[in-house]
Amino acid sequence: EIVEALRAALAARPLAGKRVLVTSGPTHEPIDPVRYIANRSSGAQGTAIANALRDLGAEVVFVTGPADAARPLGVQVVEVESAREMREAVLGALPVDAGVFAAAVADWRVASASDSKIKKVNGALPVLEFAENPDILAEVSQMGDGRPGLVVGFAAETDDVQAHATAKRKRKGCDWIVANDVSPETGIMGGSENAVLLISEEAVEEWPRMGKAEVAKKLAERIAEALSAG
Amino acid sequence: EIVEALRAALAARPLAGKRVLVTSGPTHEPIDPVRYIANRSSGAQGTAIANALRDLGAEVVFVTGPADAARPLGVQVVEVESAREMREAVLGALPVDAGVFAAAVADWRVASASDSKIKKVNGALPVLEFAENPDILAEVSQMGDGRPGLVVGFAAETDDVQAHATAKRKRKGCDWIVANDVSPETGIMGGSENAVLLISEEAVEEWPRMGKAEVAKKLAERIAEALSAG
Repeated sequence: EIVEALRAALAARPLAGKRVLVTSGPTHEPIDPVRYIANRSSGAQGTAIANALRDLGAEVVFVTGPADAARPLGVQVVEVESAREMREAVLGALPVDAGVFAAAVADWRVASASDSKIKKVNGALPVLEFAENPDILAEVSQMGDGRPGLVVGFAAETDDVQAHATAKRKRKGCDWIVANDVSPETGIMGGSENAVLLISEEAVEEWPRMGKAEVAKKLAERIAEALSAG
Repeated sequence: EIVEALRAALAARPLAGKRVLVTSGPTHEPIDPVRYIANRSSGAQGTAIANALRDLGAEVVFVTGPADAARPLGVQVVEVESAREMREAVLGALPVDAGVFAAAVADWRVASASDSKIKKVNGALPVLEFAENPDILAEVSQMGDGRPGLVVGFAAETDDVQAHATAKRKRKGCDWIVANDVSPETGIMGGSENAVLLISEEAVEEWPRMGKAEVAKKLAERIAEALSAG
C-alpha cells in the first residue's frame, strides 16, 4: 500500500527533484534612450509552460523579457530586457535537467545604440547598423559539459513552417523544436490558442489547435517522460 | 443668485461645449509580421491629460497608440498602431477647439516592411531602410482652415531640453510645447511624475516636478483659460 501511494504521488509529480529552465517573452533591443526594436511575443505560451512544469513538480527558473503576460507563480522569475541580458541569466541558471527556450529572442541588435535621442538632421534618415545577437539556443544546445539533458527550442515561422523548423533544429543542435505559424491571420501571436508541430530527430508530430495552457500541459508531460526515460 | 450659481457652474466646467483632441502613447512601426520598432512612452501623461480635460467639461477625442496606461473613461477612444494610422485618426477627429499632441510618434518607419519573417541568410545582417513618417503635429499646426484654435505639442528630449523644444515649437508652428527630459536617470518615461517646461512664443515656464495627474490638471486649466480668452 505504501509502495502504491508513493507510486501514485510520484506519478502525479513526475518532475519532482528536476530543475527546468524556461525562457519566455520578447526581448527589447535599444536604438537610443527612447526607441527600441521589439517583437510581438506576449509571453503567454512561455508562462503557461512554466506553470505546467511547476504543476508536475519541477523546480522552475523562468527567464523573461518584457512580456505582457502575467508571470508564473511559485517559480523563480528573472526579468531581463535584451538578448544579451537573457543570455547572462540563462547561463547563470545552469545546470538544469531541461531547458525550454520559448522566448522570441531578437536575432539582431543595433550595433551602436545611441546614448542620446537620435534627432532628424536636415531631414536625413537614420542609418541603423545591426550586429548579431548571441544565439542562446545554439550555445546551450552545443555545450559539452553542463548541457541540459533535454533542450527544447521554439520556431515562430510565417511560411514553410515544417521545413524552416526542421532545419532550425539541426542547425541549433537542440533535441526538440516546437514550431508554430505566427502569420497574423492565425491569431496565434498574442492569442489564447496555439497549433504546433513537435519536431524531434525521429518524428514530426502535428498537434491539433488547442489552448496555450493545454499545449503547455502536453509539452510538460512529454518532458517528464523524456527525463524519466533518460 | 441664479447668475451667481451659473457663474460657479461655468467656472467649474470651463471647457463645456469645447471639443479637444488628445493623442497619446507610442506608435509601433512594423519591420515584418513579428518585429516592430517602438518607443518607451507609457501613455500615462496623455491619459491623465484626457481625464483632466474631461473633468473641466470638454468633449475629448483620445487617439492612442498601443500604450500600457489604462484608457481614460468617459471620452471617445480611438486605438491605432502606426504613425500613419494615427494621422488618419487625427484628421478624422477634426475640427476641434484644441489639440494636445502628447503621443510619442515614431519619426521613421521601415520603408518596405516585409510580409514574411525576415530570416538570417548565410549570417548576413538585415538592411533596414527608413522612410519619414507623416509629421502630424506640423501638419495640424500649419493648417489654414480647420486649424484648432490652440495646438499643443510635446517634446521628449534627453539633452538641451529648452533649446531643442523651443526650436521644435517654431519649426512645427504649434502654439505651445510641453517639454520634458526623458533621460533614463530622470525616471519620467514610464514613471508617475513629470517635470516640464511650458514653452509659448512669449515665455518659458518651468513647472516643478509633480505627479502626471497634477501636470495634466494644470495644463487643462491653462487650455481652458486660453480658449476662453481666444
